[in-house]
Amino acid sequence: MTRLDSQMAFLMEAEKLRQILRATPIGDGSRKENSAEHSWHLALFAAVLGEHAPDGVQIDRVIRMLLIHDIVEIDAGDVPIYAQTKAGQAETEAAEQAAAERLFGLLPDDQAADFKALWTEFEAAETPDAVFAKSLDRFQPPNLNLASGGGSWKDYKVTFDVLDQRVGKPVRRGAPALWDWIAPKIRAVLG
Amino acid sequence: MTRLDSQMAFLMEAEKLRQILRATPIGDGSRKENSAEHSWHLALFAAVLGEHAPDGVQIDRVIRMLLIHDIVEIDAGDVPIYAQTKAGQAETEAAEQAAAERLFGLLPDDQAADFKALWTEFEAAETPDAVFAKSLDRFQPPNLNLASGGGSWKDYKVTFDVLDQRVGKPVRRGAPALWDWIAPKIRAVLG
Repeated sequence: MTRLDSQMAFLMEAEKLRQILRATPIGDGSRKENSAEHSWHLALFAAVLGEHAPDGVQIDRVIRMLLIHDIVEIDAGDVPIYAQTKAGQAETEAAEQAAAERLFGLLPDDQAADFKALWTEFEAAETPDAVFAKSLDRFQPPNLNLASGGGSWKDYKVTFDVLDQRVGKPVRRGAPALWDWIAPKIRAVLG
Repeated sequence: MTRLDSQMAFLMEAEKLRQILRATPIGDGSRKENSAEHSWHLALFAAVLGEHAPDGVQIDRVIRMLLIHDIVEIDAGDVPIYAQTKAGQAETEAAEQAAAERLFGLLPDDQAADFKALWTEFEAAETPDAVFAKSLDRFQPPNLNLASGGGSWKDYKVTFDVLDQRVGKPVRRGAPALWDWIAPKIRAVLG
């Protein structure tokens, strides 16, 4: 195996991310969004909304982080934010860790370590780059739900208070201006 | 309209890129790839394959370029590479120019100019960043066609010579190592 063989093995395995469907519908409500499209849309959010990030955030690192943030779902699946439970959390985390080992492990060792570290940083949500990336990951779905007239909020009977805890809190943490912009729009729908 | 209103108008219009289907099937051959997934996959190619780019290529610029390179298709549609004709080229280019004006024009003026310039640079394929980005844009579909056992090559009855002109040439120009890697695999299928 050459380095390029390993890199292509990873890229053609990563390709399967588009088979993972999320809870959120696309803008016109005609079908669910998949995780590859979601990752592209988020990377574009980062490229466009960088000026709303706190000082010191490196947008190009955030973009790379968002491109790979969901790749573990190829093995571990997507757990919709409103379906997450305390009990299920440890199991999900273990499945995602194993997925990260297998998937990033397809890359040459140096790149496997780099990509795994970037994914781990995103998951931990402690560095400024990861906090901003997480806030975009939470901010994008409400926009799709608003566009489709309720989307996954209806499916999960979401109230404003529940959304405020699971979505509002992380968005405010990394990008308060984005929350101030969308909160009134969400209130108008969820009351 | 605040800056954020304009940025969100662009991001929620760009979201429609996933409605544009390409000629290439996804890896398992079950359906066509859409242009949002394609853009994500290409950005990941850039993040992984940067070491095969010529010296001086700035991978983070290439990633941003690839994230936006197909957005004009929302208005202008996708013209499969094997369906392109000299006669149709001027018409396609005019439609894409108008699309770039409308779509990037949704952004605040400074960002509209930046994004339009980045897209124009990609289309011109003259700078090192754009040449490498174009080579990835041509290199990814053959990998999907190989995975799905022929894919769009069958639909368009593509011969190796035609592929060499439309795909091989631009891939060799920006990333000769990638062409050397894939050419024997393509020959084994197309003869």
